[in-house]
Amino acid sequence: MFPSVSRTLMIRPEDVKPSRDDLTVVGTFNPGAAQLEDEVVLLVRIAERLREQRDGYCGLPRWEPEHGIVVDWITENEIDWIDPRVIRNKKDGLVRLTFTSHLRVARSKDGRTVDRWCEERFLPESEWEEYGVEDPRITQIGDTFYISYVAVSRHGAATALASTKDFESFVRHGVIFCPENKDVVLFPERIDGQYVALHRPNTATPFGTPEMWIARSPDLVHWGSHSPLLGGSSAWEGDRVGGGTPPIRTERGWLAFYHGSASCHGSASCHGSERSVTAGKVGAYSAGALLLDLTDPSRVVHRSRQAIFGPETDFERNGFVPNVVFPTGIVERDDMLHVYYGAADTCTAVAEMSRSDVLAALG
Amino acid sequence: MFPSVSRTLMIRPEDVKPSRDDLTVVGTFNPGAAQLEDEVVLLVRIAERLREQRDGYCGLPRWEPEHGIVVDWITENEIDWIDPRVIRNKKDGLVRLTFTSHLRVARSKDGRTVDRWCEERFLPESEWEEYGVEDPRITQIGDTFYISYVAVSRHGAATALASTKDFESFVRHGVIFCPENKDVVLFPERIDGQYVALHRPNTATPFGTPEMWIARSPDLVHWGSHSPLLGGSSAWEGDRVGGGTPPIRTERGWLAFYHGSASCHGSASCHGSERSVTAGKVGAYSAGALLLDLTDPSRVVHRSRQAIFGPETDFERNGFVPNVVFPTGIVERDDMLHVYYGAADTCTAVAEMSRSDVLAALG
Repeated sequence: MFPSVSRTLMIRPEDVKPSRDDLTVVGTFNPGAAQLEDEVVLLVRIAERLREQRDGYCGLPRWEPEHGIVVDWITENEIDWIDPRVIRNKKDGLVRLTFTSHLRVARSKDGRTVDRWCEERFLPESEWEEYGVEDPRITQIGDTFYISYVAVSRHGAATALASTKDFESFVRHGVIFCPENKDVVLFPERIDGQYVALHRPNTATPFGTPEMWIARSPDLVHWGSHSPLLGGSSAWEGDRVGGGTPPIRTERGWLAFYHGSASCHGSASCHGSERSVTAGKVGAYSAGALLLDLTDPSRVVHRSRQAIFGPETDFERNGFVPNVVFPTGIVERDDMLHVYYGAADTCTAVAEMSRSDVLAALG
Repeated sequence: MFPSVSRTLMIRPEDVKPSRDDLTVVGTFNPGAAQLEDEVVLLVRIAERLREQRDGYCGLPRWEPEHGIVVDWITENEIDWIDPRVIRNKKDGLVRLTFTSHLRVARSKDGRTVDRWCEERFLPESEWEEYGVEDPRITQIGDTFYISYVAVSRHGAATALASTKDFESFVRHGVIFCPENKDVVLFPERIDGQYVALHRPNTATPFGTPEMWIARSPDLVHWGSHSPLLGGSSAWEGDRVGGGTPPIRTERGWLAFYHGSASCHGSASCHGSERSVTAGKVGAYSAGALLLDLTDPSRVVHRSRQAIFGPETDFERNGFVPNVVFPTGIVERDDMLHVYYGAADTCTAVAEMSRSDVLAALG
């Protein structure tokens, strides 16, 4: 039996005030999610670009530790447009983002409606966060929430770690997976004495297609014992997969939602650097699920032959990047799973489904 | 004063017997080096390709754990040739190597002449070593020699760790830096209680050019606290640098040789996936030197404004990949440094120079 999925649009860019008057919010998406006391806390990626348009120029925002957002104005004839989010500078061949991202905290009692936004913001701080902080995933371990997030800069897209107990103040633990690495999700408990993470290291390898790896750590900060976990195989996920929601314990194994993209299947032209730029979303992104062995999570017990849910509604089909469902957070409420996701790289939404239905769909 | 460098060609492909009758040795290069009792031990990368030529086909070797080397014969119309070492399969867009590499042990009393080859070989074993093991670097810590080497497979080019006390038997410690990551060198002692490595993670990032990073570890197996160390800046190194020899302690700081390539400087066309294929050697590679602060090795005290030595001799200028000097090993003998390197991706050579001259050249 295939799970029935109820979707609710939660946050749109127009719901959020820009950081500055000269910026406009273009995305409120890819949220981390956690249950804290009686509230669901969402750590939402806020993408902003310049409001000002100058004829013949493109304004590229970036963060400087001392000055906040600064803007590099580049003449349009220096630029190759890769997509609305990404340009390549013809002079040096390097890629820049047309927006910059930071994270904000939203709180919801029912898990479907934002009741309030907190003042505290998670802003770029380090040289490896110059182009923004993106796509947080949250895992509660003990009384601490650990946040793995993407740090983008001229040094590449890496994954860094932060932690918090209250989502009001954050401690930073530095880069845990060096570039290129995204889609890092942490397991909520130690297995065999070690912390475990899924990660997606090889966006741009010429030897293969993007795939999920698994790694282990004594302390959440230092990672090793890397090994490949799974690549794309079914039609819906094509040849591109990456971690989505942090794994949750079930009686049948560690359950995690992940994303797959079907656009590149079998097409040589999809390989190479263009595809690897930022999230590289060139086609439909859907959400699947997988089950990993409880005692040896490097063993895949089951995975989706079909997507659990893909882009269907208007807010998933239309937006900054069309046809994207990108799961990033999960909260359990009795038998119901609330899967938080980015829709069309624009909005935050929640998909509700029965946990037992999802497990039944996984063989 | 610039150091005078004396170069000796040590090992050529014709000096080495192939692993099997149907293979031919095309490279004996990029050696790790260590002093063990009264001998210099070299761990040499042996690259082999198929002897057999079939009209209209290309034979691509790879390792299978149970069968050793197996060959995939692909029709030539399925293939785009990137260079003599690398093809791209038109069907799936993926890259394969035309050769496969393993490691062999050579021993030398004077550090310039190979006296004997050992029987023991370091062969691919894991799924992430399917296309070969390459470019070992050796660091002695206590009575153990740690070997960081590149593991290449359909999963990408990662760096794995092995150790030995005698170069007769080896212990493997798995992948320590996931794809894409090469040019990992370990420091010979803990600093501030932690092991330290230089690594080169971002070969294929679209945001920047390949640069060296630094990371720390409690146990040599798990790595974190990654941060960018240095990118190419001077003309000789263009916009591509990577670690070379493991750092050695001097009174002025940690001294390490590294490589830089000058070919891509300022050229947009050099970016993207073609350049990142395998070592991506598209132009002249030279050896520079850097000094890192003894107590805080993330601080660059000094670095080469000019290359210490570049491709000059016939064996450095001509070979499988012309114009390459690629330092990978170092042994100290009183005031003399013996820097072992790959020449033209074909031969192993040693460059001898005075340690005090090198330090004097570094400001």
